[in-house]
Amino acid sequence: MKIVITGATGFVANALVNRLIQENHEVYAIVREESNTSSISKDAKLYVDNGDSHALNNFFANVNPDGVVHLASLVLVEHTTDDIFPLINSNILFGTRLLEAASKSNTKWFINTGTFWQHYNNEDYNPVNLYAASKEAFEVMAKYYYETQGIDFVTLKLNDTFGEGDTRRKIFNLWRDLEKSGKSLGMSPGEQIIDISYIENIIDAYSQLIENMNVDNKHKYNGKSFSLNADERMSLKALSKVYEKVTNSTLDIVWGERPYRDREVMVPWDKGEVVPGWKQKIPLENAIARVINSEEEN
Amino acid sequence: MKIVITGATGFVANALVNRLIQENHEVYAIVREESNTSSISKDAKLYVDNGDSHALNNFFANVNPDGVVHLASLVLVEHTTDDIFPLINSNILFGTRLLEAASKSNTKWFINTGTFWQHYNNEDYNPVNLYAASKEAFEVMAKYYYETQGIDFVTLKLNDTFGEGDTRRKIFNLWRDLEKSGKSLGMSPGEQIIDISYIENIIDAYSQLIENMNVDNKHKYNGKSFSLNADERMSLKALSKVYEKVTNSTLDIVWGERPYRDREVMVPWDKGEVVPGWKQKIPLENAIARVINSEEEN
Repeated sequence: MKIVITGATGFVANALVNRLIQENHEVYAIVREESNTSSISKDAKLYVDNGDSHALNNFFANVNPDGVVHLASLVLVEHTTDDIFPLINSNILFGTRLLEAASKSNTKWFINTGTFWQHYNNEDYNPVNLYAASKEAFEVMAKYYYETQGIDFVTLKLNDTFGEGDTRRKIFNLWRDLEKSGKSLGMSPGEQIIDISYIENIIDAYSQLIENMNVDNKHKYNGKSFSLNADERMSLKALSKVYEKVTNSTLDIVWGERPYRDREVMVPWDKGEVVPGWKQKIPLENAIARVINSEEEN
Repeated sequence: MKIVITGATGFVANALVNRLIQENHEVYAIVREESNTSSISKDAKLYVDNGDSHALNNFFANVNPDGVVHLASLVLVEHTTDDIFPLINSNILFGTRLLEAASKSNTKWFINTGTFWQHYNNEDYNPVNLYAASKEAFEVMAKYYYETQGIDFVTLKLNDTFGEGDTRRKIFNLWRDLEKSGKSLGMSPGEQIIDISYIENIIDAYSQLIENMNVDNKHKYNGKSFSLNADERMSLKALSKVYEKVTNSTLDIVWGERPYRDREVMVPWDKGEVVPGWKQKIPLENAIARVINSEEEN
């Protein structure tokens, strides 16, 4: 298959590019002019988007891809006034330009990436932050395309993610640094439930979804959403115990030293449907062990 | 009250500015650098937005308005690739910047304007075109603000509109020109139901909504939508008969000479709730007669 992918300089899409190439797909990564593309597999073809929509239309017309996996996103837990333009630009405008180009080239399917943060309080839609609102707004724009332009559209919603090569300042990296530093770390009371998925499990879900969408178009997804849940869900506190067990370490965390953040998600969305045909292969403890081992090897 | 209004160079907002000034409100019209503001009442204060969000925040902080009536919009029945950026810029980005500035200045309420086109086939959401999708996407962005920032938000959805001074190439203007020209006009089969509202009735609804929102904040609207329906709904063909009766003319229309457009709305949305306290004061026939008379006077 010919597959266009966005966000390939980021953690999840970068790993997906590698998997798709392994699976012998022809991969086209759309990157920005300012992107550092050194981490992207040399077997992927690059297209540099400079904001010119006609050039993007031409790129799609020339490649004539089977589908698009859209993972590029500007992620912001909180925004400032200056973030509004880049947020709308990255999370609504860019995706709409992709759908326009894809529709014009008769691309069959489009896999979009959403976030559990679209579902504060487990509601059908209640955004945790303006970032989550922009993700929902893009799905609303997309409806025009899948209702009128014959392209199929589905959203896979992710929550926390981790894995080898993840350099973001997220929980396991924080704890790893804490463990090495010998210092103590003030955290929130730690009762919030964490749903964190390992990169290989995530890539399995995208791969399964691509397979599903490429089967004959009898049953279209038509804007449906799926969620990427971890089999293990537990409080942040309990998760720290799992981490300590796997790494055989003791973390010096002062629970309750910091307040919960505004609109802290205490119970992540649990009403999503799982991608048909997918199940989690790598359990949480094994995944943590893999990541730790890979770090030690490097 | 101090009321900020957008879109005042357009037909509906221009008339609303006049009414609000009549009602002794202090009116601030936000216009663009390229706007021709000559039609806007001299009693309104103008603020020129050049896209600088900090300047917009400062404007709101200085004025400290009670509320915003947002009528500015880029309306497109059909779009081309080049329209995507201006559409998102006008219909999503500008409104989000307004909500950001309004929230920061503790503005109490925000009245947004939507369209029946958000409800193709009378569905809860199905956009007739990308313009309608962008209107829905803005409501989705707004949810972040009314859920988290204490501002109340409501949308009034309009369908067709007409009235004195309306220069748009819409149905009554077309027929007026046809009547004067003595020519014939090819139209669609004419069975689509038309729901067209007279400007004074529309302005009544905004005025009522402003009143409702300014009452103590006990019952917030929290993102609710209302619809502006005409009491009279009839096919385009039947409407032409009403026009002929009021104007004592005969229109030479060749029905069926042109096809319906793609996604022609055969039955406009009729599931909307009416603004509490509002009802249509001027019946359709009187409204048409008023518009015709005012033209003859000019």
